Amino acid sequence: MKGKFVYKFGKSSAEGDRTMKELLGGKGANLAEMSTIGLPVPPGFTISTEACQYFSKHKKWPKNLKEQVKNGVEFIKSVMDAKLGDTEHPLLLSVRSGAAVSMPGMMDTVLNLGIGDRTVEALAKHTNNERFAYDSYRRFIHMFGNVVMGIPNEEFESALEALKEEHDAEEDTDLNTNDLKELVNRYKAVYRKGTGYMFPKDAYEQLEWAINAVFESWESDRAVKYRKINHITGLLGTAVNVQAMVFGNMGDDSATGVCFTRNPSTGENKLYGEFLINAQGEDVVAGIRTPRDISELKELMPEDYDELQEWGHLLEKHYGNMQDIEFTIQRGKLYILQTRNGKRTGHAAIKIATDMVGEELIDKRKAVKSHVEPIHLDQLLHPQIDDNSVDQKSILGVGLPASPGAAVGKVVFYSDDAEEAAHNEDPVILVRIETSPEDVGGMSAAEGILTSRGGMTSHAAVVARGWGKPCVAGCGDIIIDYEQRSFTNGKVTVHEGDWISIDGARGTVIKGRKDVIKPELDDDYRKFMTWVDEFRKMKVRTNADSPEDSKRALEFGAEGIGLCRTEHMFFGDERILAIRKMIVATTIEDRKDALAALLPYQREDFKEIFKVMKGMPVTIRLLDPPLHEFLPDDKDELDQIAKELGVNPTNFAQKVRSLREFNPMLGHRGCRLGITYPEITEMQTRAIIEAAIELKQEGIEVIPEIMIPLIGTPQEFRSQKLVIQKTAESIFEEVDGSVDYKVGTMIEIPRATLVADQIAKDAEFFSFGTNDLTQMTFGYSRDDAGKFLGEYLKEGILQEDPFQVLDIEGVGQLVEMATKNGRKAKPDLKVGICGEHGGEPRSVTFCYQQGLDYVSCSPFRVPVARLAAAQAALNED
Amino acid sequence: MKGKFVYKFGKSSAEGDRTMKELLGGKGANLAEMSTIGLPVPPGFTISTEACQYFSKHKKWPKNLKEQVKNGVEFIKSVMDAKLGDTEHPLLLSVRSGAAVSMPGMMDTVLNLGIGDRTVEALAKHTNNERFAYDSYRRFIHMFGNVVMGIPNEEFESALEALKEEHDAEEDTDLNTNDLKELVNRYKAVYRKGTGYMFPKDAYEQLEWAINAVFESWESDRAVKYRKINHITGLLGTAVNVQAMVFGNMGDDSATGVCFTRNPSTGENKLYGEFLINAQGEDVVAGIRTPRDISELKELMPEDYDELQEWGHLLEKHYGNMQDIEFTIQRGKLYILQTRNGKRTGHAAIKIATDMVGEELIDKRKAVKSHVEPIHLDQLLHPQIDDNSVDQKSILGVGLPASPGAAVGKVVFYSDDAEEAAHNEDPVILVRIETSPEDVGGMSAAEGILTSRGGMTSHAAVVARGWGKPCVAGCGDIIIDYEQRSFTNGKVTVHEGDWISIDGARGTVIKGRKDVIKPELDDDYRKFMTWVDEFRKMKVRTNADSPEDSKRALEFGAEGIGLCRTEHMFFGDERILAIRKMIVATTIEDRKDALAALLPYQREDFKEIFKVMKGMPVTIRLLDPPLHEFLPDDKDELDQIAKELGVNPTNFAQKVRSLREFNPMLGHRGCRLGITYPEITEMQTRAIIEAAIELKQEGIEVIPEIMIPLIGTPQEFRSQKLVIQKTAESIFEEVDGSVDYKVGTMIEIPRATLVADQIAKDAEFFSFGTNDLTQMTFGYSRDDAGKFLGEYLKEGILQEDPFQVLDIEGVGQLVEMATKNGRKAKPDLKVGICGEHGGEPRSVTFCYQQGLDYVSCSPFRVPVARLAAAQAALNED
Repeated sequence: MKGKFVYKFGKSSAEGDRTMKELLGGKGANLAEMSTIGLPVPPGFTISTEACQYFSKHKKWPKNLKEQVKNGVEFIKSVMDAKLGDTEHPLLLSVRSGAAVSMPGMMDTVLNLGIGDRTVEALAKHTNNERFAYDSYRRFIHMFGNVVMGIPNEEFESALEALKEEHDAEEDTDLNTNDLKELVNRYKAVYRKGTGYMFPKDAYEQLEWAINAVFESWESDRAVKYRKINHITGLLGTAVNVQAMVFGNMGDDSATGVCFTRNPSTGENKLYGEFLINAQGEDVVAGIRTPRDISELKELMPEDYDELQEWGHLLEKHYGNMQDIEFTIQRGKLYILQTRNGKRTGHAAIKIATDMVGEELIDKRKAVKSHVEPIHLDQLLHPQIDDNSVDQKSILGVGLPASPGAAVGKVVFYSDDAEEAAHNEDPVILVRIETSPEDVGGMSAAEGILTSRGGMTSHAAVVARGWGKPCVAGCGDIIIDYEQRSFTNGKVTVHEGDWISIDGARGTVIKGRKDVIKPELDDDYRKFMTWVDEFRKMKVRTNADSPEDSKRALEFGAEGIGLCRTEHMFFGDERILAIRKMIVATTIEDRKDALAALLPYQREDFKEIFKVMKGMPVTIRLLDPPLHEFLPDDKDELDQIAKELGVNPTNFAQKVRSLREFNPMLGHRGCRLGITYPEITEMQTRAIIEAAIELKQEGIEVIPEIMIPLIGTPQEFRSQKLVIQKTAESIFEEVDGSVDYKVGTMIEIPRATLVADQIAKDAEFFSFGTNDLTQMTFGYSRDDAGKFLGEYLKEGILQEDPFQVLDIEGVGQLVEMATKNGRKAKPDLKVGICGEHGGEPRSVTFCYQQGLDYVSCSPFRVPVARLAAAQAALNED
Repeated sequence: MKGKFVYKFGKSSAEGDRTMKELLGGKGANLAEMSTIGLPVPPGFTISTEACQYFSKHKKWPKNLKEQVKNGVEFIKSVMDAKLGDTEHPLLLSVRSGAAVSMPGMMDTVLNLGIGDRTVEALAKHTNNERFAYDSYRRFIHMFGNVVMGIPNEEFESALEALKEEHDAEEDTDLNTNDLKELVNRYKAVYRKGTGYMFPKDAYEQLEWAINAVFESWESDRAVKYRKINHITGLLGTAVNVQAMVFGNMGDDSATGVCFTRNPSTGENKLYGEFLINAQGEDVVAGIRTPRDISELKELMPEDYDELQEWGHLLEKHYGNMQDIEFTIQRGKLYILQTRNGKRTGHAAIKIATDMVGEELIDKRKAVKSHVEPIHLDQLLHPQIDDNSVDQKSILGVGLPASPGAAVGKVVFYSDDAEEAAHNEDPVILVRIETSPEDVGGMSAAEGILTSRGGMTSHAAVVARGWGKPCVAGCGDIIIDYEQRSFTNGKVTVHEGDWISIDGARGTVIKGRKDVIKPELDDDYRKFMTWVDEFRKMKVRTNADSPEDSKRALEFGAEGIGLCRTEHMFFGDERILAIRKMIVATTIEDRKDALAALLPYQREDFKEIFKVMKGMPVTIRLLDPPLHEFLPDDKDELDQIAKELGVNPTNFAQKVRSLREFNPMLGHRGCRLGITYPEITEMQTRAIIEAAIELKQEGIEVIPEIMIPLIGTPQEFRSQKLVIQKTAESIFEEVDGSVDYKVGTMIEIPRATLVADQIAKDAEFFSFGTNDLTQMTFGYSRDDAGKFLGEYLKEGILQEDPFQVLDIEGVGQLVEMATKNGRKAKPDLKVGICGEHGGEPRSVTFCYQQGLDYVSCSPFRVPVARLAAAQAALNED
């Protein structure tokens, strides 16, 4: 309707609904909706974004807005039986911004609008609490002065501090009513100094100022910059929500509280929550008074309790979900301020979902589709730090939540120390600036890993997630001093042997020995996961490099191995010596000899894994990392190795130096190694094929899939495939037998996605290595991006860390292109993903949409991926 | 014709022509063509690829091939009036392979086929040279035995060595006729031992064996692998060319020689070449006898000389180009063995082109289109090593031809030493493992630069090319020892102060002080380049960072600056201190202070460049490299700097360490710096805009184009563009004036090409940074790829070094996509390229085909790019 700027809600009806976000903003549309479905929400009105647009253009209100606002206030007054600025029954309002998209720089809430020198008295009378009334008044002046008029907080704070000093008050609560009256006067002076005006006594004037402030915040520097950077166009402006304040502190017939329709920690089907008689909402949160359990409300205000419970039942039925409700009882009348699906623990989510299916409130489809978030399963599978044992002060820093779970142990800085401690059954946390393959022994021995550098796909993070070991990575808040064997966050210094706790799901590092809650998988979980698999269409495999990991992944429901890295297998004592011999070999014969020494180890490794995975596909990636990763940096260690290898230390050091690279990520690795040293590919192929043949003879079927890493051209693939085929055929001849095997490739180099059609002619499968693909598509080194990624996320330049959530817009285009073109060339091409994104729910959804055959992720993420895949299939319908 | 496998040529006619490459192979089609246009080529026939296909399948010849071959031989006999195996007038043949595509692993040539115990006598009689006859015989047995029958070369060589020892012969030429007769016998024994058969006396048997060997080589391991890797499919097989041998050594009425229709070094319009009376072709090349100048032939064999000259004129007219002719006169009859467009120096190319236009043999269009290769211009613009002064032994190693031109000087290893030597006017070559921005002083002072590591786009290569200074990069043949101040190639060690010469066009490093030929630009060059510009449609700009470079580029015909890097401007004494202050600043104020100190320098730099380029566009790239590039690695130097900066050395060292990156190429650089430190962008924008305004006030118009590097998301671009606009607007306000400027971006991150449409909405121009784009699309670090690129090129996995020639198939797809999508979003988007490929002819052609507005390259490549652009335009028609 042209010329209509004000949309009223309340009294179980509304002029808007939830489809009108563009006009009423997100919050306004939601308030209208809540009112429409009958909830007793405090009445109010929303000023539309069109009004804001007019204001931005003309720097004044559209012609009839003032009248419509008055009319809106009249409506509120009629419902509330109260009047703005009234000395008897004063109506107080809240004013909030609310655009269709939330953005930084918008004006915050102004509460208690309407208090003035006269209404404060009425408030005192109503609440029977003069101190409270003046406290509210001084808070209102501060909030209004700061939020609406832009007076710096410090101006009010220093006035308060001065007054407290005069009265020897330590806390705000030490000030009495008279002090607060004095403070109101001083705040008025601050206001006048800051604005040049008297504090507006008139409630309508206050309201006009507040509305203008919201309008103006739409054009604030931060908001404008945010919209420009993110190209948010087409929005008219922000809406303004004006709503009646209701008070739970108007006497003993008033109360305020929050409640869940079921227990959010256990899932038990019983109202759960707390309330305070004669109190304001913020008192419940502030913790000054101890709130009472919701069950006591039943005795104190039985009618209100019954009504609340009734609303709870109705809302659960309406939304098909457990609700989190904020309520206030003002003089016996119940108001619902807010209802939303309640947040819950993983354990509760599973129980509520299975219970609600049992109660026939929802069906299995709905339970799987929207009741349990994939991330909930993470909680179920890992130990959690008990929040009750943690106070803010003990948090030493926050890093990346690299591998979920809680770990508690004594700090050690060296891998050897971790191994020794594990030997003595001493729990330790391994703390390193970053980890390298050399540290795997200590990482494995430690309860958890903490690094000060590196991202979500750094070595520490990837390895720890693979093992399901808690890890906080890239915690830039701490600085590690290896020499002093300590780390510090600038305030607290932690020494070797001190206890710390880490929470790998949140990324927190906590001083001391915190309590841990153990994970538990019950029947509800098992029942739920069978439903998940009923709806799932895409396969879920695991990334696993050992029989133990493979076993664990099978228990979590993996349907094969999507990525078995072979480099971790080279780190045993004798193996590392052999690979080092291979590296420093100067003739092809020496290199072949060294590789021959590795062959039996590799063959045994593969046999063990194949045994565990019998009948399922196992994708083995050939050697990938640059060779210098198998060598230390330290001079003494190098000399020691030279001695062990029986080579001249100077030559050895020179050889090692010559292997160093400026950008190892883009260096001599992956299939580039296999092409310059085909004997490596030959040895690995031999190990795989011989292992498979030996098991076949034992009656165990395996489906080895040999995966060539880092392919960028079809020529590379063909060249390596030839080596593999030739090796396999010569083994078949030697043993007069054969096994089926496949040869495919990682797709992780941008160029590979561009020539995928050509590669697919020869390759039997593609597996997207989205870690490397993300690195090269963005040009971000995962180990270095920490220097700017934080800033990028804060500034809204990136919405997500692309190493955590697959960048659909960029990297996703390449995935789509390669899948389409690959299948055009070979319609039955098997396509999967084995990057870290394979266990991230949104990325799994994308993979499903692209028609991938499977995702592969670390064992502990397998259930997460299963649920995400099922939800993706359900959301498609 | 079905069943036809043999295609004859000779007697001024042929059964094939040049369109029949698939059936006759490249060589066969060419021989047919030459014969058809009337050249007196020795007669012969080509066995078609269909025959090879049949052979591959059935391991035998098709039914009527034998008869057709006989028939072919009969034809040759009839033309040559000689007979295969004849004792009177024996016909000798050559047999060569020739597929449609050349590939490794194919059989080499077999010459003189037909010699046996009896024919050798006839040969002796005909040539009147018994020694020659037996020498040919033993060579034939060796060649046939090795090439056709696969007997290792060593077997023949050791028989020869043994004989020489017995006769105290040092050289082969010390053996007399009888010795050679004995050698023939011993070779026959070697042959028999190696094959189990007697050496075939029958000429037809020899021919059959040779043809089979060619057929079989089609299926050799190397050839099969090459075809598989490069997916060469659809070829039937190889053809076999059988041709009469003609002899220039049949007496004093015979001769052999090579000649050019014009002088290939100077371009002079006069037959140029040399010949030998009574000699074989290889004698001319072997240098045993001194060949005579072609002019002498006129006196000795006036008729043949006249015929040769006539053919020369006719061929020049026919092909519209200078010809390189191989001829043999057998008993007074002239045979043309080969004619092709003659290779020539750059100088000759220009002269021949302009002369031929003058002579109306060709028009300007043809002169520009095909007479001068872009690479020829390189020779014209740079000094060349005089080949006569170089022998093979003095070549110390071969690296990458990183920047053309010759340089001669004494070896120094440190930048300081180079600067000091330059001060004393001592010519030096700076020899480094690799260079960094710290070395620019010394690089500038040196005559030339030699590095042992790094590729075509390494720091040394890029900087040297920019200056037109000779550079050999990544010369892995030498190992540098800084401590000993020497380098060695394993045989020869060169010490500081020793003289070396480098040839940056060929990549050679030569011991000693070699002669250098100075470049010279004459009127012909100028005339030719005006024609070039008549046909050229795409603009050519230059990459230049200084007024000197800009001036030089203008002289070479640049039409603007496409890339002005700003980081090189930070390396003066006071500047580097200021930038280091900026880097270690811990507060934004300190950083701003340090930047303020840099501002006047930058402004002056830009003013100077703008002045030179007045009226033309100048694209300035904001700071790009990671900050640690401005800091040394060495501890002592760091301490010194800490002292200069007045900061604590330990803190400073820690700060520097924290800046180090695992993969700096993918690290905190480019716009990522500008986003985390917007004050850098502000300072640089201020310098650019203030410089432009000051010049505008002096009446000098400039068109600054501010280029943001390393953009990967539209959000990054918008964020930096906002900073630039805000800064510019505040300057406009300060000075109450304005200038026009553009804001655009490098497209060098793969992701940018994927979201080019979104970036183009805000950007006014795109400039492809194909160096980085190549690095990230392939996942090759340009500094490390040397470890495998050589192998890749050798194995045919890559056809070209993608850092030298733009990879059209992969990187080119991204360029195409970004250009198309960018222009879809903004039709008038200006698009150029400023990577090193901008001066590489084939890459320039690709840029033209994609509709780019300009290419930009280092000053010395500007003429090359102009010619390549003109040729691209002409080839399009």
